[in-house]
Amino acid sequence: MEKIAIAIHGGAGTLDPSALTPEKEAAYRGALSAAVRRGHAVLAAGGAAIDAVEAAVRVLEDSPLFNAGKGAVFTAEGTHEMDAAIMQGSDLRAGAVASVQNVKNPVALARLVMEKSGHVLLSGRGAFEFAHKQKVELEDDEYFFDQLRYDQWQEVRGSTETRLDHSTGEKKFGTVGAVALDAQGHLAAATSTGGMTNKRWQRIGDSPVVGAGTYANDATCAISCTGNGEAFLRAVAAHDVHALMAYKGLSLEEAVRIVVHEKLPPLDGEGGMIALDKHGNIVLDFNCTGMYRARIDRRGEVVAIFR
Amino acid sequence: MEKIAIAIHGGAGTLDPSALTPEKEAAYRGALSAAVRRGHAVLAAGGAAIDAVEAAVRVLEDSPLFNAGKGAVFTAEGTHEMDAAIMQGSDLRAGAVASVQNVKNPVALARLVMEKSGHVLLSGRGAFEFAHKQKVELEDDEYFFDQLRYDQWQEVRGSTETRLDHSTGEKKFGTVGAVALDAQGHLAAATSTGGMTNKRWQRIGDSPVVGAGTYANDATCAISCTGNGEAFLRAVAAHDVHALMAYKGLSLEEAVRIVVHEKLPPLDGEGGMIALDKHGNIVLDFNCTGMYRARIDRRGEVVAIFR
Repeated sequence: MEKIAIAIHGGAGTLDPSALTPEKEAAYRGALSAAVRRGHAVLAAGGAAIDAVEAAVRVLEDSPLFNAGKGAVFTAEGTHEMDAAIMQGSDLRAGAVASVQNVKNPVALARLVMEKSGHVLLSGRGAFEFAHKQKVELEDDEYFFDQLRYDQWQEVRGSTETRLDHSTGEKKFGTVGAVALDAQGHLAAATSTGGMTNKRWQRIGDSPVVGAGTYANDATCAISCTGNGEAFLRAVAAHDVHALMAYKGLSLEEAVRIVVHEKLPPLDGEGGMIALDKHGNIVLDFNCTGMYRARIDRRGEVVAIFR
Repeated sequence: MEKIAIAIHGGAGTLDPSALTPEKEAAYRGALSAAVRRGHAVLAAGGAAIDAVEAAVRVLEDSPLFNAGKGAVFTAEGTHEMDAAIMQGSDLRAGAVASVQNVKNPVALARLVMEKSGHVLLSGRGAFEFAHKQKVELEDDEYFFDQLRYDQWQEVRGSTETRLDHSTGEKKFGTVGAVALDAQGHLAAATSTGGMTNKRWQRIGDSPVVGAGTYANDATCAISCTGNGEAFLRAVAAHDVHALMAYKGLSLEEAVRIVVHEKLPPLDGEGGMIALDKHGNIVLDFNCTGMYRARIDRRGEVVAIFR
């Protein structure tokens, strides 16, 4: 039980400390703490890493503070299209959904894709049909409504501009994710997002793509990313961290540093990632001003937003 | 010009030589030869690798013999949902579409996603809207109709069974792809597929996923895969070849061998890949009985189906 560890994120970006009121900061910190504790409780009870990351991400999806599940941003059509993925490092099984609507917890649906569909990635209306068949919790559009997200959309509605999940003066990549190591030594990762405000054409980012935004392999590490999804897709960012460890023998910290600070920036890859290796080492790194994040390991709990 | 090279594939699988009549084999060989020559002509004229792979894949998409474009298999709903990706190794730019209908040449749409959308991956109805806006060539459902595909669908229609692109006694992963190296030393890769017969839930395989079914990086190699898409997704197969070369210093041949014969089989990853490195070396490898394939380099043209 010494090695059990979990880390989560709630997005990263060019965050302005002065724009964050003490009340708002307390709300974010409270939500992050609740999520990481929920996941840690699963591990502490001897539960599996895959259950811990799903539990933690569900808490973040249920909070309107983060761009995933309730609180997902608006598409150009005024809908909420969400992406999620989950992967377990013991056997490289994975499940993911892209551009899915009205599903309360996309990460739970991704888990069912992994376990019940025979496939890895389902999308759009088809993913919704699978959700319906699996009797996952569905919600009306009103459930996903959030005034802040609506106001963000109104600023760009009718234009061709897509926007990151942002507040005035801020540029935030709103995505949530978790990585965990259980007492059996297994790693898992999960990521969930609403994507970009005013996005069109059922654009899919890195979050639901195994190897890009989400990856877990017991031989090396578990990774969940947040940032400019297109760059993370082109960089195959999460798998690249694994490969640097597996083939070059780098430490988790060094592998993450190379991908986040050397590989991604030339591709306009602003953002960050949470990473956890098989020894329980946690690395939370980003190349922007802040990342909503929390961790619990044998040294205790840490919640942070800025550097 | 010494180094220009191109290779293509038209799917792989458990092929039965006795099921292939001389007439049918001649038809396949003719189509493969036409496609690889079309791509090579682009390179020989000093054209870019990205143009060569698009040109070669378009020829394969336009042939009803292969499960891509015209000749794509039927989904459970009797439609044709196609996936495609294209990537250039010089700057890691990439474009892809998933679950798109009525687009004559999905690879050409993937190219436009790369160049005009600001995104990497578009899906479903949204990808179709983008196609319409970009004025790409669209076709009615009738264009995609093929009696063999229809008969294949009838065998499993109404059941929950999904099938690979197969003939009686055969199990074939019908996908097409191309990799090319141009005179400027740039690599590119492209892949296009109709997926699995009777597929549901807008399942997305590895073909449109950068790093899984398609990858190109001038530092190492260009790859296009064909096989059980779920396994290739979980293995992040194409990027793994790149990583083994970049971080472990392996040759293209050795890196491909490890992924195709050691990494994929434990994940039920039957299939193969075509690979080309920056020196013009071509490797066409598979872990099943056959792969429709062709290549042209300084040693001339080779077209092959079985080992």
